[in-house]
Amino acid sequence: MRAGIIGVTGYGGLELFRLLTAHQEINELFLYSSSKQGQLLSDEAPHLFEMNQEKLRSFEQLETDELDVLFCSAPSGVSSELLPPHLEGKMKVIDLAGDFRLKEADVYRKWYGKEPPNATFVDNAVYGLTEWNENKIKEANLIANPGCYPTATLLGILPLVKTNVINPKSLIIDAKSGLSGAGASPNKASHFTKVNDSLSVYKMNKHQHIPEIEQTLKTFAETEVNITFTTHLVPMTRGIMATIYAELTEDIQPHTVSEIFNEFYQSKPFVRVFKEKTDLFTKQVYGSNYCDLTFALDERTNRITVISVIDNLIKGAAGQAVQNMNIMFGLNETEGLQQSPLFP
Amino acid sequence: MRAGIIGVTGYGGLELFRLLTAHQEINELFLYSSSKQGQLLSDEAPHLFEMNQEKLRSFEQLETDELDVLFCSAPSGVSSELLPPHLEGKMKVIDLAGDFRLKEADVYRKWYGKEPPNATFVDNAVYGLTEWNENKIKEANLIANPGCYPTATLLGILPLVKTNVINPKSLIIDAKSGLSGAGASPNKASHFTKVNDSLSVYKMNKHQHIPEIEQTLKTFAETEVNITFTTHLVPMTRGIMATIYAELTEDIQPHTVSEIFNEFYQSKPFVRVFKEKTDLFTKQVYGSNYCDLTFALDERTNRITVISVIDNLIKGAAGQAVQNMNIMFGLNETEGLQQSPLFP
Amino acid sequence: MRAGIIGVTGYGGLELFRLLTAHQEINELFLYSSSKQGQLLSDEAPHLFEMNQEKLRSFEQLETDELDVLFCSAPSGVSSELLPPHLEGKMKVIDLAGDFRLKEADVYRKWYGKEPPNATFVDNAVYGLTEWNENKIKEANLIANPGCYPTATLLGILPLVKTNVINPKSLIIDAKSGLSGAGASPNKASHFTKVNDSLSVYKMNKHQHIPEIEQTLKTFAETEVNITFTTHLVPMTRGIMATIYAELTEDIQPHTVSEIFNEFYQSKPFVRVFKEKTDLFTKQVYGSNYCDLTFALDERTNRITVISVIDNLIKGAAGQAVQNMNIMFGLNETEGLQQSPLFP
Amino acid sequence: MRAGIIGVTGYGGLELFRLLTAHQEINELFLYSSSKQGQLLSDEAPHLFEMNQEKLRSFEQLETDELDVLFCSAPSGVSSELLPPHLEGKMKVIDLAGDFRLKEADVYRKWYGKEPPNATFVDNAVYGLTEWNENKIKEANLIANPGCYPTATLLGILPLVKTNVINPKSLIIDAKSGLSGAGASPNKASHFTKVNDSLSVYKMNKHQHIPEIEQTLKTFAETEVNITFTTHLVPMTRGIMATIYAELTEDIQPHTVSEIFNEFYQSKPFVRVFKEKTDLFTKQVYGSNYCDLTFALDERTNRITVISVIDNLIKGAAGQAVQNMNIMFGLNETEGLQQSPLFP
Repeated sequence: MRAGIIGVTGYGGLELFRLLTAHQEINELFLYSSSKQGQLLSDEAPHLFEMNQEKLRSFEQLETDELDVLFCSAPSGVSSELLPPHLEGKMKVIDLAGDFRLKEADVYRKWYGKEPPNATFVDNAVYGLTEWNENKIKEANLIANPGCYPTATLLGILPLVKTNVINPKSLIIDAKSGLSGAGASPNKASHFTKVNDSLSVYKMNKHQHIPEIEQTLKTFAETEVNITFTTHLVPMTRGIMATIYAELTEDIQPHTVSEIFNEFYQSKPFVRVFKEKTDLFTKQVYGSNYCDLTFALDERTNRITVISVIDNLIKGAAGQAVQNMNIMFGLNETEGLQQSPLFP
Repeated sequence: MRAGIIGVTGYGGLELFRLLTAHQEINELFLYSSSKQGQLLSDEAPHLFEMNQEKLRSFEQLETDELDVLFCSAPSGVSSELLPPHLEGKMKVIDLAGDFRLKEADVYRKWYGKEPPNATFVDNAVYGLTEWNENKIKEANLIANPGCYPTATLLGILPLVKTNVINPKSLIIDAKSGLSGAGASPNKASHFTKVNDSLSVYKMNKHQHIPEIEQTLKTFAETEVNITFTTHLVPMTRGIMATIYAELTEDIQPHTVSEIFNEFYQSKPFVRVFKEKTDLFTKQVYGSNYCDLTFALDERTNRITVISVIDNLIKGAAGQAVQNMNIMFGLNETEGLQQSPLFP
Repeated sequence: MRAGIIGVTGYGGLELFRLLTAHQEINELFLYSSSKQGQLLSDEAPHLFEMNQEKLRSFEQLETDELDVLFCSAPSGVSSELLPPHLEGKMKVIDLAGDFRLKEADVYRKWYGKEPPNATFVDNAVYGLTEWNENKIKEANLIANPGCYPTATLLGILPLVKTNVINPKSLIIDAKSGLSGAGASPNKASHFTKVNDSLSVYKMNKHQHIPEIEQTLKTFAETEVNITFTTHLVPMTRGIMATIYAELTEDIQPHTVSEIFNEFYQSKPFVRVFKEKTDLFTKQVYGSNYCDLTFALDERTNRITVISVIDNLIKGAAGQAVQNMNIMFGLNETEGLQQSPLFP
Repeated sequence: MRAGIIGVTGYGGLELFRLLTAHQEINELFLYSSSKQGQLLSDEAPHLFEMNQEKLRSFEQLETDELDVLFCSAPSGVSSELLPPHLEGKMKVIDLAGDFRLKEADVYRKWYGKEPPNATFVDNAVYGLTEWNENKIKEANLIANPGCYPTATLLGILPLVKTNVINPKSLIIDAKSGLSGAGASPNKASHFTKVNDSLSVYKMNKHQHIPEIEQTLKTFAETEVNITFTTHLVPMTRGIMATIYAELTEDIQPHTVSEIFNEFYQSKPFVRVFKEKTDLFTKQVYGSNYCDLTFALDERTNRITVISVIDNLIKGAAGQAVQNMNIMFGLNETEGLQQSPLFP
């Protein structure tokens, strides 16, 4: 298979490069960069020194059907411009940005502050939350790969919403991310001395992943609700933890919650369900495609707390994209994704 | 004034030493340590090299009325044993542990797993949440200094509970702390390689600060509720952020919430109220006695989110203890506590 | 006394603000910023919220003799332009940049790649390495405040060079700094994800502090040598450690080295000499004006290793500047600088 | 092939597990632990949850010739006791501790403070610095796998010593390590609040890796010298940087130094030689078996500075051990070690 990566010098693109070069089914890998064309990838990313010899290409060089699959890891808004000319050929496309995720144009405009891509393409785009949408992903030509926060959040709550164990209107998600989620461009908020030894809150009630979570609850669990969702920056490079709160609709025992999670995920290779009240930590999934889950029931308040951790650049971006590619091409779902978490 | 510190080699004790040596009204400072008596404090704490010359004393050496004020920064359970013989003299006592905070013996037993101190002493102990209990603190002989999480949490929610703006039954607190809150004893959970570049959740629904917050809501806001409270460890040394969620009881505008906070805190030198949706970060209070607050209203969900940040070792421990001492002795509340936050 | 700060929104400027607002002899403090004039300092530096009420001024507003002392903490090259019109009045000036440090114009051109200021001003500028130049500092009108690396390095080696205990030609300095030394401007090298959990080397043999160290060895120890000097970035906010290597000229015992250091520094309040082979760490001086020293003799190789640690923003910048001001105005050397290191 | 790991719950052991489970030629992997036998590895190492199902074994269970290769990653001193009964069979043994590295018993006693193993075994042990000892490694039955600091140091200096470009008597090595090098046992020095945001020096002139480097210089470069070697702890999890200083013996140009390094390493897959004065950083090899090198010539001082970076747990421990296994069994040297560095 021949694959291409747009935006390979960003953090998501670098992870795609790392995963795809180790993928058994990818024979050729073409790298595109708008700003660094003609350079070697390792000029920009010295950890890859001597690991790639071909120069970065201009995206204009892409010929129709030159590739079997194209990954686009450009900033939001860029995919809308670059991809449409290529969306009607045989080449399958996996977009890691937000452009094709939101089905309603007005919602996209409100939260992204931009014009959405052509509605036809948006309609055809399949939401790539692998564990919950495998059948559609198999047939898809264009994948809207989920955001990092929505992946962690939705894997934690969908089983409970689907089984009516919780009241979805009560959902509150307190999300925490490492800095790589904010991208590679330097700015005041990503300066080491601002971030180090400090925890910050940002985009209160304004994060563009809010409508993505709400839309997906509607799609996969027929539930139309508004959620409360807060985002924090943690002084670490990778990792997301979503701490999720909801009211229970019934008297329930821990073993029943475990059974519900296991029913949905026991056949899913990348979701690991830990026993109640396990002290999860983000580094236990560092460098891997896992999503790890635990929960706690509180009979004093009749609430459940769910903890979900992922590596934001892998299960939250490049890893899930490769997982989707595997399914689209009929490969083993875990191909190229079996790396153990790296600890310590 | 002559002051004493029990447990001076712990993190809380070191901060008390730092603050009290710079305090204009303290002429003599006696240091007690159960395990290091006879040593210099700087043998244990090299940053204090050449800054203290007197040897650490055994607590048995303490003579009644030798001191005007005694701070006890020992682990929970130790104060219950050490302090009672000294609680009926003239010496004022400020205890930084949990021993004297919970008024009901059964609640203490349940959450601390220990026997509480003699009920008379517990009854007489005054809860040292300075901004909310100044009148009683003025008259107190024994202060139960608040926990770090309760300080950050209660300063953020008491104005809203008191004014009935929120439904207290809906309170959910997602709390995050740096590692110094876990104490100076090395263990697997505090090993650098376990903590660094990682975020963890711990003590889900089991933290002993839960009943302290609930009791204080009852005392100061006549509100008897159970709260949901989750604690996380952030890879940083100091700092707590409490992200607090509650349902609004009425349609309310941001400026009204600002007015409520300002009404309670405009005369309080150590609580700073920022405008709505400010991106607060813990390091903005690092090394200071400030508690910084902001909030966000969400009309989509009819909820409020409150953010409260403190330095856990200062406003969450030693700083508030000194603030209480100032009030107990009729000094200026800010005496010895006017250090600017240290940034970067 | 009336003091002014140019460049108050940078890291050096913020530390000057912190120290001068707590300084007993400073009654009025004027803040200048080229880029943020008209704003409050706390708009830029939220940790100072409610701590300053006056707006940032344009430097053009400065009237001759309005101030007793002016601190300039602007990037290198800016002082050369801004300061000369003010260098012939009564106002004393302390410049924290490199502009006035190097006496030879060609050396400045070579290492800074810029034109030096007018030679008369450079000639009159007094190098502000307080412990070694107190007599000239007392009489100075313009101080060239030392760089952070030179301060840590020179305090560690001058006693040994002066007493001929080491061969100065053999000097090798391996220097390590936290990120605040690189300034507040965001760039690729200061991005959190680049710095975190990583150690880097930079400017090999090219750092502009090399000629400053060499010139000072010549001035204070009549020794003309070229040194080897390497700089590293450590994933921490503050702190410099200089690890210094030199050949011994004679057979010497540890106690003799200790005596040499003590002879030079026992009357110096901000230099602390630890016993041989102490495991120094940068955080033991965090937030303070101390320089801490230790050393190790190696009879196997006939070399000495000296370790020197400072807080780069305090003893390496703003603290030493205030110390120099104290001496220039006949105040107590420690005035405003007696803060304990902040640990943990 | 059947492989075993002693000490699998330590950091070196966990990396061996990670690498060997992904190794194509290893069919069976037996895990031994003295303290946790009967448990699952993932009970101790939650990142491995659902990744291993067999229980940890007692080492007493090991039957002669049950395994093809045994890795021992126990603390120094333990191998000396455990391994001898198994050193005369067919099973090949790779020891990651220091026990079998030093050929002279008195040197071992002096630096390790323990009795060395039986001299016959020490004599037979082959030093596993792969790039420099491949022929002997091919024939070895017992490998003394190099220490982390010696690996980084020796790969940087051996080409220069062998070609007489530097004066070996002048060698000074300033070494810096992340915390994982200090092992998984919690103690005061590894407590997060002690390490975070701080840099420390330790074991000045006393590190047990000094004689290992000196012995290897003698073995591979017929050079008998004493070196100066200082170790520092950097607030990061993985990574070593060795900054190496030496006098040049001749006038030499950068391209000649590059040629020397390339001559030795161009056929070595895990040593990457960067151009002069590259700003190397430890994270560029994080999670990989690479050793990256650069250098700077200084004509002002006639010295060379060499920079060498490795991941201490991989090229400095488990990775080099697997590389040695590959060579001992005639496999491709890179088998199981081709993971890209993980960045960011």
